[in-house]
Amino acid sequence: MSYFRKNIEKMEGYTPGEQPALNSIIKLNTNENPYPPSPGIYDALKKIDPAVLRLYPNPSSDLLRNKIAGKFDVITDNVLVGNGSDDILTIAVRSFLSENEKAACFTPSYSLYPVLAQIQNTEIVKIPLEGKDFSFPAELVDKTSDLYKSINTAKIFFITRPNAPTGTNIKLEYLDKFCTIFKGIVFIDEAYADFSDNNALPLLKKHDNIIISRTFSKSYSLAGIRVGWAMASKYIINGMMKVKDSYNVNTVSQYLASEALDDTEYLKENLAKIIGTRKKLSDKLRNYGFKVLDSRSNFIFASPPDGNAEKLFKYLRSNNIIVRYFPGERTGKYIRITIGTDREIDILLKTITKYIDKYEKV
Amino acid sequence: MSYFRKNIEKMEGYTPGEQPALNSIIKLNTNENPYPPSPGIYDALKKIDPAVLRLYPNPSSDLLRNKIAGKFDVITDNVLVGNGSDDILTIAVRSFLSENEKAACFTPSYSLYPVLAQIQNTEIVKIPLEGKDFSFPAELVDKTSDLYKSINTAKIFFITRPNAPTGTNIKLEYLDKFCTIFKGIVFIDEAYADFSDNNALPLLKKHDNIIISRTFSKSYSLAGIRVGWAMASKYIINGMMKVKDSYNVNTVSQYLASEALDDTEYLKENLAKIIGTRKKLSDKLRNYGFKVLDSRSNFIFASPPDGNAEKLFKYLRSNNIIVRYFPGERTGKYIRITIGTDREIDILLKTITKYIDKYEKV
Repeated sequence: MSYFRKNIEKMEGYTPGEQPALNSIIKLNTNENPYPPSPGIYDALKKIDPAVLRLYPNPSSDLLRNKIAGKFDVITDNVLVGNGSDDILTIAVRSFLSENEKAACFTPSYSLYPVLAQIQNTEIVKIPLEGKDFSFPAELVDKTSDLYKSINTAKIFFITRPNAPTGTNIKLEYLDKFCTIFKGIVFIDEAYADFSDNNALPLLKKHDNIIISRTFSKSYSLAGIRVGWAMASKYIINGMMKVKDSYNVNTVSQYLASEALDDTEYLKENLAKIIGTRKKLSDKLRNYGFKVLDSRSNFIFASPPDGNAEKLFKYLRSNNIIVRYFPGERTGKYIRITIGTDREIDILLKTITKYIDKYEKV
Repeated sequence: MSYFRKNIEKMEGYTPGEQPALNSIIKLNTNENPYPPSPGIYDALKKIDPAVLRLYPNPSSDLLRNKIAGKFDVITDNVLVGNGSDDILTIAVRSFLSENEKAACFTPSYSLYPVLAQIQNTEIVKIPLEGKDFSFPAELVDKTSDLYKSINTAKIFFITRPNAPTGTNIKLEYLDKFCTIFKGIVFIDEAYADFSDNNALPLLKKHDNIIISRTFSKSYSLAGIRVGWAMASKYIINGMMKVKDSYNVNTVSQYLASEALDDTEYLKENLAKIIGTRKKLSDKLRNYGFKVLDSRSNFIFASPPDGNAEKLFKYLRSNNIIVRYFPGERTGKYIRITIGTDREIDILLKTITKYIDKYEKV
């Protein structure tokens, strides 16, 4: 007999991107920041007194919450800290979705949403992004359209902004309109927002059905400490607090995240470098005949001239460069490349030049 | 309108024990270890290269899993690492309990189980421990009894061993028999097992429906890093892996837990000290006329001579000593005292002497 719930028994589980040993590997597959965290983190680690680790952490990460609130011009009651923004997503699913209810998201977008829905035993409706540019379907903000009606009863709609793996941004006006007509929670996953020229924060004061999540994993170069946070109304945060694990964020991570948040100057420099490298990489690949979507993130989604992304993916892999490949009718024509250091991207470009010389030149 | 699920909307949420600032407070309320973690943790913290924190952690904490497997004579596939053992409990609830199904536990035991059941929108049957000694009801291992029939269809039964807040141990023979007749998962929460003279590990090879959870929070003095683990059959661990968050344990905690596990000598000394202090405290309180349950844990459950535990709790609080008080018809006659350092327990005993002189002597 099976002890597991049927939905768990039959599911496959989420496959995180490969985390290989780094010796001689150029790792451009899981959208980590190529630069180390703020120098303040070096000092902070040294200052930790191991004796404090015998005690439980602050259950709601209050020092960090206060700091986040101050920085983003909300109040502490608007902030929930999580064990990575994946924890925030899990808390949201468990807060708003009963079994056999419905969630929704775009496709392609972050592949964890359908996995979380499956764990919760809820349906998830996937709205396809349209055309060559994976653009957001206009009918979705038309209440009378069949497309909108297909998600009308969903309790939560997950929107990655900038989107992954496309790197593109749903327009704020579109998002604003969607928040007005949609009756459930709009979960705006802003893991990559710092790499974009705008974000959805201005909508937070306008709509009571918005949750915005952020993370220290990308722009702050701290994927290893697992800290993310949600910003939402006090009412929503209070409810989600009841669902989170009591001590969901450990003492060291609360402290390091708090230190990283202080170093605004370092964050700016880091972002400027990555955005610069993103432009260089996008321009060069377009010169080589790639289709490159207009990225607002720390990765690009690029399709080689012959559309055979799997072949390019494997070629790069055999040359010790790991990028991400998502099989599928449409995504399978693209590879997703995390923006690395300039040195790493130079090596990538040289390797792609060789590939093109070998396979694509006539 | 409410965005939340009805079960979430109406629940109160778990209240963790108070985490006050430590200045001049003697904190004996949340069963933390009074001694600092292994000296190896001091060196380990210094060795961490912050540059590695830009990368995601190993998703399944494999180095730590391997080490745990080696130490407890199981294979790596028998081990799941969690963000504290609360994470293990949450994963189990989400793996084995569908909405409107049934879970079960003893009462009093760890008060988080009913909260997790409520979040999952499942019923939880609470089997009362019996009599003055809070003993485990014999009928529960009799398949034909009404008591057993009341939990016959439960999908998971949570057993804290040693139990909290009583500190007492369910007998291994009793547990063995229960695992044989019960058709669901028996979750044996061994957060305090290192303070006991035996544990349920020998049952793991005998029954395929057992999950044993452990933690670094108590015996290893590392509540602040949030690391716990489960041991179970490969089949159970595989299924629970699908439900856990992808990167549920951060890089620093994986590393520190792994270092702590190596220092067997320090663990032994630490345990010996706490068990010694536990005996001293229990003996002295019994001399004062307290009823003290026979603890196998790092805390004791003690009832003052007049049974007015709330009054004693408040008196201690006003003298900067925090212990735990659980209101209720039966638990309300007791206070739970975490075993502190000898110095802390001496101060506690002096304060209790004053209390008895003031209120209980005629």
